[in-house]
Amino acid sequence: MSLFSIFTDNKQRFLTGIILIAVVAAIGLINNFFVIWLFFGIVYMFSFYEAMRLFKIENNQMYAYAAGLWLLALIYPNPDDLFFLIAVVFASLLAYTREFDKKLFLPFLYPTASFLFLLTLYNDFGIDSLIWLVVVVALTDIGAFFVGKMAGKRQFCVTSPNKTIEGVAGGVVIATFAGFFTGSMLVDWPQALLISFGVSVASIFGDLFESYLKREAGVKDSGNILPGHGGMLDRVDGYLFSGIVMVLLLRGLL
Amino acid sequence: MSLFSIFTDNKQRFLTGIILIAVVAAIGLINNFFVIWLFFGIVYMFSFYEAMRLFKIENNQMYAYAAGLWLLALIYPNPDDLFFLIAVVFASLLAYTREFDKKLFLPFLYPTASFLFLLTLYNDFGIDSLIWLVVVVALTDIGAFFVGKMAGKRQFCVTSPNKTIEGVAGGVVIATFAGFFTGSMLVDWPQALLISFGVSVASIFGDLFESYLKREAGVKDSGNILPGHGGMLDRVDGYLFSGIVMVLLLRGLL
Repeated sequence: MSLFSIFTDNKQRFLTGIILIAVVAAIGLINNFFVIWLFFGIVYMFSFYEAMRLFKIENNQMYAYAAGLWLLALIYPNPDDLFFLIAVVFASLLAYTREFDKKLFLPFLYPTASFLFLLTLYNDFGIDSLIWLVVVVALTDIGAFFVGKMAGKRQFCVTSPNKTIEGVAGGVVIATFAGFFTGSMLVDWPQALLISFGVSVASIFGDLFESYLKREAGVKDSGNILPGHGGMLDRVDGYLFSGIVMVLLLRGLL
Repeated sequence: MSLFSIFTDNKQRFLTGIILIAVVAAIGLINNFFVIWLFFGIVYMFSFYEAMRLFKIENNQMYAYAAGLWLLALIYPNPDDLFFLIAVVFASLLAYTREFDKKLFLPFLYPTASFLFLLTLYNDFGIDSLIWLVVVVALTDIGAFFVGKMAGKRQFCVTSPNKTIEGVAGGVVIATFAGFFTGSMLVDWPQALLISFGVSVASIFGDLFESYLKREAGVKDSGNILPGHGGMLDRVDGYLFSGIVMVLLLRGLL
């Protein structure tokens, strides 16, 4: 397959990809809390919608709760705490009514908690930390793909049949090195190394977890919002665990 | 029933209560992070054990995870974040093995997250905030009992048949006033009022949630560790939601 045919066969995928990169780059350059909040909020609402479908939940009230939570995150100083507000309200309703569907809590565990952490990451550590995150997650994904194509032999795990141990290891090594150089501009090198490694590994498992949910739901893509890329969750899955891990490591190691 | 017979009939309950008050008072006077961590850790492990039984989970590995998490909370600057560490590791194992029992996550939602918040409360806001919490939760409980005995007519909720709307309202009013005076020594009065009210309401629902769990499990007491008081969870249930709410309100309003 020539380079040209890779492009023509995946034209839609490439075009969508270029638009996504342009949008993310523009938002990074604007570097404003409200814009970041709005952007993450839009991505969050689509992801929440897809997660509701993966969990086979039909309850339109949940969207109002999700939107309300995100509005609160605009003014609350520590957005990641708001997950526990939902948890307490949910458990209280459950205890009071005794007939609340427990499954309704799932979309607040995933992907809600992750988006609250992504906002917290920007809030507490600035745009540089988000760029560092994007570098590590993107290179883990790209590295795993190419190393897997070239040297992949043994399957990594049944949940994601296309992933190989060699690919995953290659992706983590490449992303850790690239992340190390990016992170060294912001923090001391031992932290830069450790955080890049942790974030890269978390991104592999974030990806795997979304595959697991799709497999449980018996679907191929989480949705079809992004032409050629499937759903929103398919695109952001790598960030959903790694954003949490990055905040945890930055707080613990700095 | 004379006052004397109330005492003799509940002798064991009174004696245990006095010992508990003495232990809590001594720990408050010592006011040392390690001692608080150790005390909460012991209460946590018993509560975790009882929660495992309420959820009908038999897996001894979970105790090692709980203890490891608590050890990490000794050195991690923001203990409440550690809940998400467990969540990410759990979801990763679930995706990788595909045969992990999802129920095993429940004791990390309850009561683990709450104990991490109680430690965070001491960590970030000091012993005064814990004393304020104890005043509000204890008076909500005592107030609801006496007002309920005197003026209780309508049932509050089927989950806790002994609670009345009048008792609950009375308890919240009494605790909010007492908490207002305690809190005013630490923060401005509008915050003291709002936080005391929120914490008192949360304590009612924390209590209710534990009743719900026991009802679901079909047991009367969560355990029998405290003679005359039932289990550890029966004693601390009021603190499990209110500790979270107190941290959230202090962070949001100060």
